Amino acid sequence: MIVSKKMLGYMENSSWIRRMFEEGARLKAVHGPENVFDFSLGNPDLPPPQAALEKAAGLLTCMNHGYMPNAGFPDVREALAGYASELYEVPLRGDDIVMCCGAGGGLNVVLKAVTNPGDEIIAVAPYFVEYGFYAENHGGTLVEAKCGPDFLPDLQSIRSAIGPKTRAIIVNSPNNPTGRVYPAEVFTGLAEVLGDRPDILVISDEPYRKLVYDGREVPSVLRLIPNSVVVTSASKELSLAGQRIGYIAAGGGIDEKQKFISALILATRILGFVNAPSLMQKVYAACLCEGACIDVARYKERRDLFTGILDDAGLEYAPPEGAFYLFVKSPLEDDVAFCSELVKEKILAVPGRGFGWPGYVRFAYCVSIESIRGCAPALMRVMEGIKARRRPVTR
Amino acid sequence: MIVSKKMLGYMENSSWIRRMFEEGARLKAVHGPENVFDFSLGNPDLPPPQAALEKAAGLLTCMNHGYMPNAGFPDVREALAGYASELYEVPLRGDDIVMCCGAGGGLNVVLKAVTNPGDEIIAVAPYFVEYGFYAENHGGTLVEAKCGPDFLPDLQSIRSAIGPKTRAIIVNSPNNPTGRVYPAEVFTGLAEVLGDRPDILVISDEPYRKLVYDGREVPSVLRLIPNSVVVTSASKELSLAGQRIGYIAAGGGIDEKQKFISALILATRILGFVNAPSLMQKVYAACLCEGACIDVARYKERRDLFTGILDDAGLEYAPPEGAFYLFVKSPLEDDVAFCSELVKEKILAVPGRGFGWPGYVRFAYCVSIESIRGCAPALMRVMEGIKARRRPVTR
Repeated sequence: MIVSKKMLGYMENSSWIRRMFEEGARLKAVHGPENVFDFSLGNPDLPPPQAALEKAAGLLTCMNHGYMPNAGFPDVREALAGYASELYEVPLRGDDIVMCCGAGGGLNVVLKAVTNPGDEIIAVAPYFVEYGFYAENHGGTLVEAKCGPDFLPDLQSIRSAIGPKTRAIIVNSPNNPTGRVYPAEVFTGLAEVLGDRPDILVISDEPYRKLVYDGREVPSVLRLIPNSVVVTSASKELSLAGQRIGYIAAGGGIDEKQKFISALILATRILGFVNAPSLMQKVYAACLCEGACIDVARYKERRDLFTGILDDAGLEYAPPEGAFYLFVKSPLEDDVAFCSELVKEKILAVPGRGFGWPGYVRFAYCVSIESIRGCAPALMRVMEGIKARRRPVTR
Repeated sequence: MIVSKKMLGYMENSSWIRRMFEEGARLKAVHGPENVFDFSLGNPDLPPPQAALEKAAGLLTCMNHGYMPNAGFPDVREALAGYASELYEVPLRGDDIVMCCGAGGGLNVVLKAVTNPGDEIIAVAPYFVEYGFYAENHGGTLVEAKCGPDFLPDLQSIRSAIGPKTRAIIVNSPNNPTGRVYPAEVFTGLAEVLGDRPDILVISDEPYRKLVYDGREVPSVLRLIPNSVVVTSASKELSLAGQRIGYIAAGGGIDEKQKFISALILATRILGFVNAPSLMQKVYAACLCEGACIDVARYKERRDLFTGILDDAGLEYAPPEGAFYLFVKSPLEDDVAFCSELVKEKILAVPGRGFGWPGYVRFAYCVSIESIRGCAPALMRVMEGIKARRRPVTR
């Protein structure tokens, strides 16, 4: 067997998202893709802004396709520093920006830069399942803190999770899987909790920053917690998930920051990213500086439709303020059992235990309005079936 | 200090290529870039084939920019399997191909898939310095075998390097830094050495495969060693180094191959690559299938010019059969001292000790003909200075 033991173990416990994906592929093969209501994947389906595609086409013939410095094109880093200074309300220079291969790549680069063997990385459940792999890739261990019943981080739980080996805390707002947007108080509270621990880095994973609804604002972690980095990408706000482009922005309060930035650049190089894909570096910077974004109103429309359907079905869910997820309370105690009931009606969702939060189910609404509308009767049938089985049996 | 101890250690021992890069930046700032002869970087300077840029422009508006399966677009994998079956003279299916983020990304994915803590990865010195980092990223250790005086792998040295913890052997032909192309006998010999060890994977890092001169052929490792993978990229043959695209092709003799492929796909996902950049997946497959390639004759012309200059200067070098490197015997015992002499004449090269091979110096000739021609008098002055100091002092 040529595969490492650890990877074999991972493969045997493959993620719930993956299992639902496979179940979905089976259902689609049998019933036709148009007859399956697939809410399992956070894969943005809106087209990228036309401006992004035009920029890309224009750049192809006039750009340098060779290697550039591992941190990215200097002009791109400068442009993004200007953009990000305004967005995060902190002064950033080009040197504070390191281009990365999507947020997934960026998180690995940051964790590679900071993690000693046995260090602990805190994530706040429910959380994106990949965080555990990312921590372990670099010799770390993931430690769970918890959200409160409002799906905002429970600061007391974070305080209890912090130990001498804590190296970083990952926060993610707008949140996958809950759709919650953390208010500023979460971060001022977290800064207080971290008070005398400059050896703990706050990593803000925020690829959904622009996907917020009802005028909600996303506070700046870089401003509220100076000892932090932002990791983000073009995946959701420009619908360029497959193109793998993002950036890391380093906050002004990081201890020996210049060494930290050098470590990010070295990590980019030695993990084999070498540099973020070059065409998309230029496209990304140009688009952000011009304010290009996908049409967020279309996600809002879907959210409103979907929450209406959930309301009609009598299902409860976390306040859906951002991203494109609905985190729905399972009407059965066992979220996997509920997902199985949904599958019988060809509805695909991911059990909450895949995010460290059993008893809930995640629906991704980055799918067509037709698919959301179409699932309503099927969802109603699932709920009626569950209610029918709950009724006391009388003869 | 927020940076991990290991990364701090790496940063203190930054690579020779990097040090020469910094020295070069300093010289260029002082003297102007046109007055510095920079042979330190293997950064392809030829333009990509026009066909590649046209394909890319055409695809932008009609492709799906979202996520695809972690292994890559199924049609791209199928197309490359057809191409690679012919190239490597072995039957390959789409499932045997995993798209990667350049060869650097691909090597990390392969090593992540196979390396247990403490496993040993053999590389044949002189070798690309990144291999050491790649092995350590995933808990492995690099073990050096050696080339013979002909700069071909010494099979006896490989045999001695193999132990119970050996997990993989990295081979690289056409070679960086020597420019040698390994003949088939090297691989048949290696297959014999490995005879009863299906737990050792041969990893053929071959991004320079198309860059060979004088009608030389690059044998197929996949055919000669069934328990092998090829990792390659568009960086050199299509001059798309910054765009980060390549593929991994898995040989037919790999033990439990399906699990190995699944491990490659999982590694692609959890290392944060997620998928190889999507536009370039399509461009790469289309270009390879149509036989697009940069103009290799232009590298040959530079090689011929440069070897002539080295001959005139009385310098010896490894047979320059492929890639765009000349590995030159240092006229001083100390290769770093020779590089320092070169720097005085504004010539930048990398000391051989950066590749585990002191006493030699690497010149990368992926630079303009003018730069190569221009360095001749400067190189001559360096050699005269060295000779003058060697003459016995007579009063």
